[in-house]
Amino acid sequence: MLVKEGKSVFNGVAIGKIFVYRKADKAVSQNQVEDTTAEMARFEAAKEKAMSQLKGLYEKALKDVGEEEAMIFDVHQMLLDDLDYNESIQNIIENDKMNAEYAVFMTCEQFAAMFLSMDDDYMRGRAADVKDISERVISILNGSQVSPEAMPEPVIILAEDLAPSETVQFEKDKLLALVTQKGSANSHTAILARTMNIPSLVSTDVEVDPDYDGKMAVVDGFAGLLYIDPDEETLTKMYEKKGRADQQRALLQEMKGKETVTKSGKHIHLYSNIGGIQDVDAVLENDAEGIGLFRSEFLYLECDDYPSEEVQFEAYKTVLSRMGGKKVIIRTLDIGADKQIGYFDLPKEENPALGYRAIRICLTREEVFRTQLRALYRASAYGTLSIMFPMIISVKEILRIKEIVEEVKLELAREDKPVGNVELGIMIETPAAAVISDLLAPYVDFFSIGTNDLSQYTLAIDRQNQSLDNFFDPHHEAILRLIQVTIENAHKYGAWCGICGELGADMELTQRFIQMGIDELSVSPGYTLALRKRIREC
Amino acid sequence: MLVKEGKSVFNGVAIGKIFVYRKADKAVSQNQVEDTTAEMARFEAAKEKAMSQLKGLYEKALKDVGEEEAMIFDVHQMLLDDLDYNESIQNIIENDKMNAEYAVFMTCEQFAAMFLSMDDDYMRGRAADVKDISERVISILNGSQVSPEAMPEPVIILAEDLAPSETVQFEKDKLLALVTQKGSANSHTAILARTMNIPSLVSTDVEVDPDYDGKMAVVDGFAGLLYIDPDEETLTKMYEKKGRADQQRALLQEMKGKETVTKSGKHIHLYSNIGGIQDVDAVLENDAEGIGLFRSEFLYLECDDYPSEEVQFEAYKTVLSRMGGKKVIIRTLDIGADKQIGYFDLPKEENPALGYRAIRICLTREEVFRTQLRALYRASAYGTLSIMFPMIISVKEILRIKEIVEEVKLELAREDKPVGNVELGIMIETPAAAVISDLLAPYVDFFSIGTNDLSQYTLAIDRQNQSLDNFFDPHHEAILRLIQVTIENAHKYGAWCGICGELGADMELTQRFIQMGIDELSVSPGYTLALRKRIREC
Repeated sequence: MLVKEGKSVFNGVAIGKIFVYRKADKAVSQNQVEDTTAEMARFEAAKEKAMSQLKGLYEKALKDVGEEEAMIFDVHQMLLDDLDYNESIQNIIENDKMNAEYAVFMTCEQFAAMFLSMDDDYMRGRAADVKDISERVISILNGSQVSPEAMPEPVIILAEDLAPSETVQFEKDKLLALVTQKGSANSHTAILARTMNIPSLVSTDVEVDPDYDGKMAVVDGFAGLLYIDPDEETLTKMYEKKGRADQQRALLQEMKGKETVTKSGKHIHLYSNIGGIQDVDAVLENDAEGIGLFRSEFLYLECDDYPSEEVQFEAYKTVLSRMGGKKVIIRTLDIGADKQIGYFDLPKEENPALGYRAIRICLTREEVFRTQLRALYRASAYGTLSIMFPMIISVKEILRIKEIVEEVKLELAREDKPVGNVELGIMIETPAAAVISDLLAPYVDFFSIGTNDLSQYTLAIDRQNQSLDNFFDPHHEAILRLIQVTIENAHKYGAWCGICGELGADMELTQRFIQMGIDELSVSPGYTLALRKRIREC
Repeated sequence: MLVKEGKSVFNGVAIGKIFVYRKADKAVSQNQVEDTTAEMARFEAAKEKAMSQLKGLYEKALKDVGEEEAMIFDVHQMLLDDLDYNESIQNIIENDKMNAEYAVFMTCEQFAAMFLSMDDDYMRGRAADVKDISERVISILNGSQVSPEAMPEPVIILAEDLAPSETVQFEKDKLLALVTQKGSANSHTAILARTMNIPSLVSTDVEVDPDYDGKMAVVDGFAGLLYIDPDEETLTKMYEKKGRADQQRALLQEMKGKETVTKSGKHIHLYSNIGGIQDVDAVLENDAEGIGLFRSEFLYLECDDYPSEEVQFEAYKTVLSRMGGKKVIIRTLDIGADKQIGYFDLPKEENPALGYRAIRICLTREEVFRTQLRALYRASAYGTLSIMFPMIISVKEILRIKEIVEEVKLELAREDKPVGNVELGIMIETPAAAVISDLLAPYVDFFSIGTNDLSQYTLAIDRQNQSLDNFFDPHHEAILRLIQVTIENAHKYGAWCGICGELGADMELTQRFIQMGIDELSVSPGYTLALRKRIREC
């Protein structure tokens, strides 16, 4: 039995097999083959496996996110079955006597080049798809396909680190726990774990050793420990601990349907943070009263190119409809810093956290911003939408945003597209915004305090940088004072004020936030019921 | 005539020849030679040139910084003349028939290895020296020695960018102006220009083309323009403009010896920021009343290894002695972020500005900190010393620093080493420190507001990132409010408060700072007299 220490980011106990997650190997081998018949058979087998995966993905997408988004997997199947594509591969294997990986790779290059040369946007877009299916086939061929979807049962994922673009492809019901070697308490992995209520460790002192694949393991999120090959005694103890944790969670179910109200009768709006449509289930299951932060950048992370107005509209509309009139606060695109997207082609920066990100990108690449705003306003007709803007530091920025918003609304009115009544707010996540919150409040309906960024700028400490953990104090008085002054200034000008950063879920501070006059707390779905219990005790 | 635009960081006009500064080429060629006599002559010529450079450097250092620091160039001359060293080179050229560069390189490697293997700290230290002289000879041999020292007259330096380690080797009286392709208004180049009163441009839209070397040029710091090969008319106009600027500067000389006092009789302490001993001349010339910021990291940048207590002691003592009892505020080591030093071996960080830097390094690598504190306290017997600590965010950090300071003082007392009465202060350069300045003030004698970092953290904008210039507002209300609250809190607890960031020299704000109650302004030497004039008008 091996015992490894990590930093727990969500409590609970998970017991199951380890799945070692490695990045797919995209290197393509190139060699001559003797037995071309056997090589063709290798290709056919890989193709068949890829086909069945695509079919599975189509069905899953159809169920989860609707026909429009599912369509792409249909297109992928058609491409993979394309006669010319298959003939070219066969030709390279049989006539040139090359290995299947190389045959697929060369065929992919030719087809992609051909699509790109076409005088039609739709056909040019297919170049990315042909690459996508070819990579899938190659990774099956060279055995580097490492998606947990392939696993027959739910697993404990062990990875070096997980990027947003990697976790979006996981099937959520196949995950028991996440264990990463790197990452901090505010990393994407941590946010995912909290949304999904799964015990998870980051900064874990463990090698991502392929030998661990398939081994039995226990993640103890209470103690921050990973047991690999646990002995009988440990396993028994852990099953007991898990039992108690499950019971505890079951008890919290009593909080469902209850009001989020303090003993003195003050009602707090208890909302959830989500990263995509698929998280709405968790919001509803945990009986949150709305969505306090929908991180819209995940729509962009899932795509190979800028998501169209239509794709975005459908996504926002789905969330608003499913929330059935409850408030949904969507944050406009917040990329840059640690969230990078290839097709945005952002400059390499010395200090990305202090760089070209979020609203700064939207205000200089207006076409991207306008597309999102059009989609948001069109969706606003289907529920109760609020929009908030990230990384604001000045009144000037708000005024410019409002100008653009007015132009977009006018456009939609001319096109006879209905819009709802939309609240506009800003994130308070820079010290500048907190310090001049009295000057900003007159221009907005609400503030939402992003404590993660606010803390890192206030203390000048990158939260992802583990070597500074000794200097970081999440309860630093300066942060609490900036929150206090922000709430006071919001109320002075008739705006409401919430917290959507992780600090909002810190139960040690709940009492203090309520005393400060906070109106709303938005937390990961997994914390909702526990926080409601805590608020009712205040 | 070519006209190029740049961002001016110091006003004035410079007229002279361009010196294109390129990084020295350290690659060593290796080839057989036929004519070994000619090759030996090449080596002898290069050695002679190196000798004469070292002699010049010795004399300059003796005059500028004293015998102790000059000594090293004496040692270098002895090493270069060492019999074994020269015999080894001769042997490789004549017997192995190899080129001189290779002969010097191989000899250097052998000697450095030999020195490093010795059981004596002093001798091991010579390894760096033998590398230094060998590199000097090799760069003369391969024609890549590009130090402006080689120029017969003062020049306009044209470079891609200038790192602190590069500028420290410039002879200051050989510089007419600096023009860099990269760099921001807060870059090291900009700070150097302001210290030396030389017109300079950064972010200049110009290629660092070797063809420009030796060409006549004009730097117009008022208009932010570089003229290459100016025509007669332009040259005449520029000489006139330069004449007026020189006259203006001469008028400022009247401010020398005058009190820095407002019309209403409030005295402001007007100090200077410096980066090394050599800047003390500029401080005295410009009649500053003290040194408000001595960036001690430049002592570390000039060395190939941690500077010893003795080297530091001599440097601090020299500055204190030369300032003759006037206040000298030395900031302890502030490296990390954009100031990297090889031998510190700092981790590569995603966001170095929010990373492991300044006091965070000193409090985790205490031996480095203690060496500096011992040197500082020993030097304190020779003048009026204040010490200030950078990047503070908490009371806890101050208390730990004071513990270490007390231990160092006790050690020195036991060793019978005299110390002076030293004021202790902190930099206020994080939003956290400004916001809790009331909690910090009771533990210090003074605050010095570092507006450069305070601005970048408050606005979450990296000042070196030019793509964010449109979002950056140096007069942002949040920054001014944080300065105001810091001054008020200092006074509430009997501490004094100054500004040592570049904002202190912003004459548009002088009136406002005085109204806020500022006690001290510390600016680049070149701004001292102009700022005195401005204060006397307030």
